[in-house]
Amino acid sequence: MRPAFIEQLKNAWTQSNSFLCVGLDPTPDRFPRSVARDATGVVRFCTEIVDATQAYVCAFKPQFAHFAAIGLEDGLAKVIDYIHETYPHIPVILDAKRGDVGSTAERYAEEAFVRYGADAVTVNPYLGWDSIAPFAEYADRGVIVLCHTSNPDGVWLQEYPVDDPVYLRVARLTAEKDTGNLMLVLGATFPELIGRIRQEMPSMPFLVPGVGAQGGDLDAVLDLGRSNDGTGLVINASRSVIHASDDGDFVAAAESAARVLATRMEIVAKN
Amino acid sequence: MRPAFIEQLKNAWTQSNSFLCVGLDPTPDRFPRSVARDATGVVRFCTEIVDATQAYVCAFKPQFAHFAAIGLEDGLAKVIDYIHETYPHIPVILDAKRGDVGSTAERYAEEAFVRYGADAVTVNPYLGWDSIAPFAEYADRGVIVLCHTSNPDGVWLQEYPVDDPVYLRVARLTAEKDTGNLMLVLGATFPELIGRIRQEMPSMPFLVPGVGAQGGDLDAVLDLGRSNDGTGLVINASRSVIHASDDGDFVAAAESAARVLATRMEIVAKN
Repeated sequence: MRPAFIEQLKNAWTQSNSFLCVGLDPTPDRFPRSVARDATGVVRFCTEIVDATQAYVCAFKPQFAHFAAIGLEDGLAKVIDYIHETYPHIPVILDAKRGDVGSTAERYAEEAFVRYGADAVTVNPYLGWDSIAPFAEYADRGVIVLCHTSNPDGVWLQEYPVDDPVYLRVARLTAEKDTGNLMLVLGATFPELIGRIRQEMPSMPFLVPGVGAQGGDLDAVLDLGRSNDGTGLVINASRSVIHASDDGDFVAAAESAARVLATRMEIVAKN
Repeated sequence: MRPAFIEQLKNAWTQSNSFLCVGLDPTPDRFPRSVARDATGVVRFCTEIVDATQAYVCAFKPQFAHFAAIGLEDGLAKVIDYIHETYPHIPVILDAKRGDVGSTAERYAEEAFVRYGADAVTVNPYLGWDSIAPFAEYADRGVIVLCHTSNPDGVWLQEYPVDDPVYLRVARLTAEKDTGNLMLVLGATFPELIGRIRQEMPSMPFLVPGVGAQGGDLDAVLDLGRSNDGTGLVINASRSVIHASDDGDFVAAAESAARVLATRMEIVAKN
């Protein structure tokens, strides 16, 4: 029996002293020649990245599509099991962005929490709360609601209308429904929005993608995004860590990239 | 090489003379005792439903979560392959409601179209167009954008704000981007909205869930939703067909339920 997700996260912040989350989005085309571009290779690649970066992270975030595109659900399960067994204090966030009507959402929750044993999962709010509730009912698991994303076209829907935008309604609904296991996804490419939401939600943790390859401003995110106790951030970097090198030194390069990021993401008391 | 999705759909409308799409959302708990509640049973259940209902449908729509929750991706692939091989004129819509940033959306498109060989896939617009474009680039495959869904809480986001709601913007963006392979999801529980969108988009096909267990008004959908040539609808029924009986007569019951629905959904010239 694993502790509740939020307890795992608090513990992992303390142990790592870092907001870094390493995203496991393996791209076999970028594997070095020494790693096979097959199921065995993907699992080996991910577990070696996990070993190299585990000291620097508060969470790992495997990305579903990167396994599913090539039929590697078993590999995804093996990677999650490996993290649970080898580093039981590090929570695993399954990035699957599920969103469907209630009876189907129950099956997606079963997939994430029972089949894969993920500690948390990302979900999409387009279908409203009854599409998220079946996940949130797993009180010991984290449910991370897409709110304001890091991609260029996200604003088209999320910042509409200007006066009282969708992302703000999503954030407020999530806060209203929260009984201690909900989080928001807020892209690092819009740090001022992270600050705006933080003012309304002083303690909710945020999952922040987009600081690496997508170019978000890390210092601004740290400055504006920390919670009232100085924690509250899970800042994801994927490609910039796991594919820091495409050569035989990818493990050392990932370790180095994670170490540098973790140093920049140290958890310090808030000003 | 299969024809383009929209050509398949037109051909299937002609062959079946019906708007019925049978949703394959197998629930092993409801299988009769004669069907094993395992991988083999799920595939057998689905292929027997396909055989029993194929004469009455313009499409089949396997629902991803119902396979993924219990680790049956191989079963899902087998069911899709079976339909392609046995009834090559019937398009297969993979209902997966994917939505993610561009580089990840590429992997989801690969999953749906390459791995599973689906003819079309459902996608979620919350992340904006750059999350849908990687699917739409497969010009011969259908991309079906969630617009207005059939569940009670969908309106919370989709009908916001009242003046110029999100669902209408999604519909208009989809029409603007369409080069012949896009569709919208419009729930049967809101037929007047289907009529509103139809007035603006006289020829785009709509995928309409929610007429069975969810209680949508079929006659109003038919009246308000048909396109300018009298087609334009793919009306899904899942549980009301595939679980029409939970006993040993489930195949006959599904055949009967599909036949009755197809008769009610006959394609006739528009008034």
